[in-house]
Order: sequence, then C-alpha cells, then structure tokens
Amino acid sequence: MTEDRYQKGIKYLKNMNPDSFRILEKNLEDVAPDMARYVAEFAYGEIYSRPGLDLKTRELVTIASITTLGSAQTQLKSHIHGALNVGCSPQEIIEVIIQMAVYTGFPKALNGLFSASEVFNERNVKIEK
Amino acid sequence: MTEDRYQKGIKYLKNMNPDSFRILEKNLEDVAPDMARYVAEFAYGEIYSRPGLDLKTRELVTIASITTLGSAQTQLKSHIHGALNVGCSPQEIIEVIIQMAVYTGFPKALNGLFSASEVFNERNVKIEK
Amino acid sequence: MTEDRYQKGIKYLKNMNPDSFRILEKNLEDVAPDMARYVAEFAYGEIYSRPGLDLKTRELVTIASITTLGSAQTQLKSHIHGALNVGCSPQEIIEVIIQMAVYTGFPKALNGLFSASEVFNERNVKIEK
Amino acid sequence: MTEDRYQKGIKYLKNMNPDSFRILEKNLEDVAPDMARYVAEFAYGEIYSRPGLDLKTRELVTIASITTLGSAQTQLKSHIHGALNVGCSPQEIIEVIIQMAVYTGFPKALNGLFSASEVFNERNVKIEK
Amino acid sequence: MTEDRYQKGIKYLKNMNPDSFRILEKNLEDVAPDMARYVAEFAYGEIYSRPGLDLKTRELVTIASITTLGSAQTQLKSHIHGALNVGCSPQEIIEVIIQMAVYTGFPKALNGLFSASEVFNERNVKIEK
Amino acid sequence: MTEDRYQKGIKYLKNMNPDSFRILEKNLEDVAPDMARYVAEFAYGEIYSRPGLDLKTRELVTIASITTLGSAQTQLKSHIHGALNVGCSPQEIIEVIIQMAVYTGFPKALNGLFSASEVFNERNVKIEK
Repeated sequence: MTEDRYQKGIKYLKNMNPDSFRILEKNLEDVAPDMARYVAEFAYGEIYSRPGLDLKTRELVTIASITTLGSAQTQLKSHIHGALNVGCSPQEIIEVIIQMAVYTGFPKALNGLFSASEVFNERNVKIEK
Repeated sequence: MTEDRYQKGIKYLKNMNPDSFRILEKNLEDVAPDMARYVAEFAYGEIYSRPGLDLKTRELVTIASITTLGSAQTQLKSHIHGALNVGCSPQEIIEVIIQMAVYTGFPKALNGLFSASEVFNERNVKIEK
Repeated sequence: MTEDRYQKGIKYLKNMNPDSFRILEKNLEDVAPDMARYVAEFAYGEIYSRPGLDLKTRELVTIASITTLGSAQTQLKSHIHGALNVGCSPQEIIEVIIQMAVYTGFPKALNGLFSASEVFNERNVKIEK
Repeated sequence: MTEDRYQKGIKYLKNMNPDSFRILEKNLEDVAPDMARYVAEFAYGEIYSRPGLDLKTRELVTIASITTLGSAQTQLKSHIHGALNVGCSPQEIIEVIIQMAVYTGFPKALNGLFSASEVFNERNVKIEK
Repeated sequence: MTEDRYQKGIKYLKNMNPDSFRILEKNLEDVAPDMARYVAEFAYGEIYSRPGLDLKTRELVTIASITTLGSAQTQLKSHIHGALNVGCSPQEIIEVIIQMAVYTGFPKALNGLFSASEVFNERNVKIEK
Repeated sequence: MTEDRYQKGIKYLKNMNPDSFRILEKNLEDVAPDMARYVAEFAYGEIYSRPGLDLKTRELVTIASITTLGSAQTQLKSHIHGALNVGCSPQEIIEVIIQMAVYTGFPKALNGLFSASEVFNERNVKIEK
C-alpha cells in the first residue's frame, strides 16, 4: 500500500519534474533518505494525486504558497519548472507571482519574479508581450 | 485614469464579493479611507483585472497565499466567499487548502479548513463526497 | 499498510491527547475528513512514531515550532496538553516558550505563555517556584 | 546593576504605557514572572533606553514590525497606545501601517488598521482629515 | 493621472536610491515590466508620497518591516542605501535593526545588521562610537 | 551583575560553540558591538543558563524554531554545531528537522536538512542507519 503511494508519487514526479526528485534523493541520501520517500509518498502520492483539482492549478497554488514563504527559492524554482512541465504558460506563472504583491508584499513578489526569470533563462522561455 | 482603475476595481469587487468591500469601506472610513480606495484601485482595478489568468485561478492562488500567512482569517473567509462567487467549487477550495499542509504545515492548513467550514456553513454549501 | 500507519497514529494520539483528535475529526468531517486521516497517518503514524527521539522531546520541539508560527494558538494549546500528557513538566514547557523570545521575538513568546497559562488553568496545574 | 536596568525599564514603561505592563505582570505571575522582568530589563531598560533614536521613532518602527508579524494584535494595540502616549499623532501611526501594505501585503496592513481603529475608539481619538 | 503617479514615484526613487530602480527595471524587463511600474506608481508615487510622515521615518519603518520578513536581504540593503540617501544616520539605522531583536528575534536582527554592515562597507560609512 | 550575566553567557558559548561567538563579535564590531554583548548577556547568560531545561533540549528547540523561521541558515548551522557540541546525536537533530515538515511545511524542513548535511560534512559526522 505504501509502495502504491510511493509509485503513484514517483509517477507524478517524473511527469512534473524529472530531474528535481533525483537531485533531492541524492542530497538527502546521507542524512534523511526517509524524507525523500515522504515527498514521494505524502506530497505527491497522497496530496497531488487527489482528484478535485487539475495539476496545473496545483502547481500554481504551490507557487503562490512558496512565494509567500519567501525563503525557499530552491523549491520555488523547482515548482516553476514543474508548472511549465505540466502545461502552465510562463505568463500564468508570472501573473500568480505578481498577484502575491497584494497578499504578501512587494519584496517577496519581486524575489519570486527573479526566481522565475532564472528558470525562464535556463529553459530559454520567453514571455509573450 | 485613477477613476478608471477605481471603477474597474469596483466592478470586480461587486462580481466577487458584493458585501465585503462595503464592510471594508465602513471599517476604514474613520481611520484610513484611502486604504479602501487602494484595495479597489490597486488590488482589483490593477492586479485582478490583468489579462493572463482567469478569475477562478486568481481566487485560488489568493486562498493559498492567505492560508500560508496563517494570521488573516477575516481576509481568508472573504476570499473563500469570493472564490465561490466566481464559480470555484467547494471541493476545489478544499483541495487548495489541504495541499497547503505540504507547503506551510498542518496547523495553518487546518485553520484554513476551519475557516472554509465556517463559510460553507454560512452559505449552506455542501461538499460532494 | 496504510491501515497500519493509521492505527499506529491513533495509538499515539490516544496516548498524547485523547480528546483533541476526536474534536479534530468532528470539525473536519463535513469539509475534509481525509485531512484528519493525514494527521493520524502522516503526522503521528509516520513522523511521531519514528525512532530516534523520545516523545517528550517531540512535543517540546513542536511547541517551539508552533510558538514560532505565532498564529496557531488552538494547535499550540493542543500540544501543551499533549506535552503534559506524555510527561513533560509545566516548567519544561514554560522554559521552551520563554526561550522562543530569543529566536522569534517577545510578542510571539508572550502569546505562547498566555496559551500555556490557559491550559494550566484548565487542568489546575501549578508551576513550582 | 540588573536592578538599574529594571528601574530604567519600568520608568520607560510608565511613560509609554502605564497600564499595559501591570496587566502583563499579572498575566504572567503564575506561569513566568521572569518574562515580565525580561520585558522591563531587556526590552525597555536595555533596548528602548539606548541613545541614538528618539522614542517616537522607536514606537513607530515597533508598530511596523508587529504589523509585519501579523499575529500579535494584543501587542500591536499596546504599542499603538504607547505611540500615542509618547507623542506620535494618530496620522503618523496610520501612515506607518498603510505603508506596510507595500512590504508585507494588504491583509496584514488591513488588520493593523483595524487594531488602530479599536485603540482610537477606546481613546476617542480622531484622525484629522 | 497614472502618468502623474509614475512621475511622482520616479522623482522619489531618484531622490532615495538612484541606481536601484534602474537595476530593478532591468531585472524585470523580460518577465514583468509592469511590476517595475507598480513599484514606481503604487509604492512610491502613491504611498511614499503621501503627506503625514517624513521620508526618513518612512525609510526606517520599511527597514523594520523587511528585517522582520527576514528573507529579503536585497530589498533590505536597497532601503538601507535609501535611508542613508534621505538623511538617516548610520546609527539610526543600526538602532532600528537592533530593536528588532525584541520583536522578531535575534537571528533576523543579526542578519539585518550584517546587511547594514555590507552597505556601510560599500559606502565607506563609519558608525560614530 | 551585568558582568556576571556576560561571564555566564560566555562560559556557555565556549561550551556550545567556541568559534561562532568569536566570529559574531568580529562581524558586529564595526556596526553593533553591543549586539554581541546582548547575545552573550541575554540569550546565553540569562535564558540558556536558566534551570529547568537541559542544554541538549535547549539546542533542539532552538533548531526547531530556526527551521520554522526558514530564513536564518547561518544561525541554524551554528546551532546544529552547538547541538552536536553539547551531546545531541546527529540522528536527534535530523529527527527534529524532519518533524518540522508537519508544522512548518516541507520546503523549510528540506532546507533545514540541507543545512544539517553541510554541518555534518564539515565535521565528517555520519548518521547511523
């Protein structure tokens, strides 16, 4: 059963961000390998795989939340990659982060935009104007 | 021009949450009436009225952000009303808040769900199971 | 297997705070019954039941974290009950919250102490001086 | 020496907010009387009594910080009283809180304004328009 | 009218921090040029240009707020530059950040001081002792 | 008396983390030497030296709090060193940080684990599996 959740999570992770989970597993393997398993099992196998919300919206609300945290730019960039991979447009991602200026203030929104800019540059993605 | 932004914002606010802006204006009239104007002009007339993201998604990412703040339950309830008013299903709102457990922890997610429960009770809304 | 995690979690919850999980289940039953299950399965069945840290310390670090959040007094009070139930002394709980003044500032530490005071009064617990 | 810091702190507290420290001492006397002493000794006897910044500005930056925390309305109201008591105008207090919309978002700024409104009502203070 | 707010904001920005807005515009030009415009129009043209609070105090309360956020060191450094540019003394800036230890804890206050130290070194500013 | 608190604090700091206070004093000497003194006097001479909680638990609850802040990795690493120096096992430290996923979300817990990993690598510490 746990195996099922793990496999379900891994399937989602491969769809959303093929590289980032591999890097996460590697970074955690000496200190907390179970934590990588919880990411797969709980975050993805359990939560993201719930019905009732499409995967694009799941990525956009995650981007809203991490922008609001303000201090987890690695995870924010990983989910900006994930959002693009599941079909969000660069413009949708930018709109979410701009809107955060209203709810969590300009400094965190600006830092979110700088992270988006880094990801778009890495992938050679352009915003349509 | 400012008038335009104000009118645009008011139009959105009437669509999203007819009562809450009137209450806000009343609560601010003696201390900071300009702040109600900024809500209309900047938050709604400027940000929510941008193209590139549908209104339902705008409400859901706002719910994600305010759940992450954890300390603004009045505003959270107001946007849960707003989300329902622009066509989000109760289930979509619940899914967003449950997902916040992963990003901002269980206590804030639970408090978000309690706020949703209050709003759903006020409106006699039922989650389909 | 999930059943196992759930049962393990429930066993811990009964030990730590017999009433609070029942209340949580009731509060969530109409909006998000799965969330109560995640609390049992993931938070308690998976994390609290890990070896490597005794249960008293698990409750004290939770009190530190929720005091730092600053906005989840219901959950803080629930874990102050839990800490007392697993054998922490009132003085240990107070020491943890006082120490938070250094790390997250006086306002949140003071609000944490007020929550502890409410719990101690409910249980007629006295701090030894 | 500690006595000196304590006396210095108490002198400031009497100037800034004659009632709130007495209430604080009372609320803490059963759980953490030392914490009231630290407030007097460290926060006021040590920090507020430093040269290099006038007391009005000290209260305004405190209001900015607690509005940014977003979850300590009791302490925010106490410092709005304090700011008025050391000579800040209601308008200056409102300006600080409005400005927080830019740095920590509208929900926390709005809740700060509502707290200011409560204090002004208690004291029958009017904003000049 | 918007043009007026923009021009007003740009005038303030040139006074407070001639370089930082140019850098901001450049960093945002490919992803969210409107966001730079909102900084000029809303944050500076609308909020900073309000009467009722002098510009030095506006910068100091901003430093208090961003130190409290704890995760926006780029913006903190930009406003420490701004505070010096509008006439705050290095000592006043340091006093504000030290005081934050009381309200948001030592770690964020220390990181604020390290940012101030970097700015003072860049500008070859010395604190008078 | 202050001298006493200072000496008491220094004694603890030498026990917990011989290098980090020296670095802190050096980093603050030009901008805010008093702040280093407050760390010694208040944080360590006053709070950590209180009876009622053992030093290992004091370090673990500090790690919980700073992981929850999410934006003070320098201080987090310093306290992971401190925890090891007063006798906490690497596994206990990891358990505390993993548990934070429940209370403050996965991104901050993951970043806490990465900081622990850096400290363990610096000290060539291995987790027993």
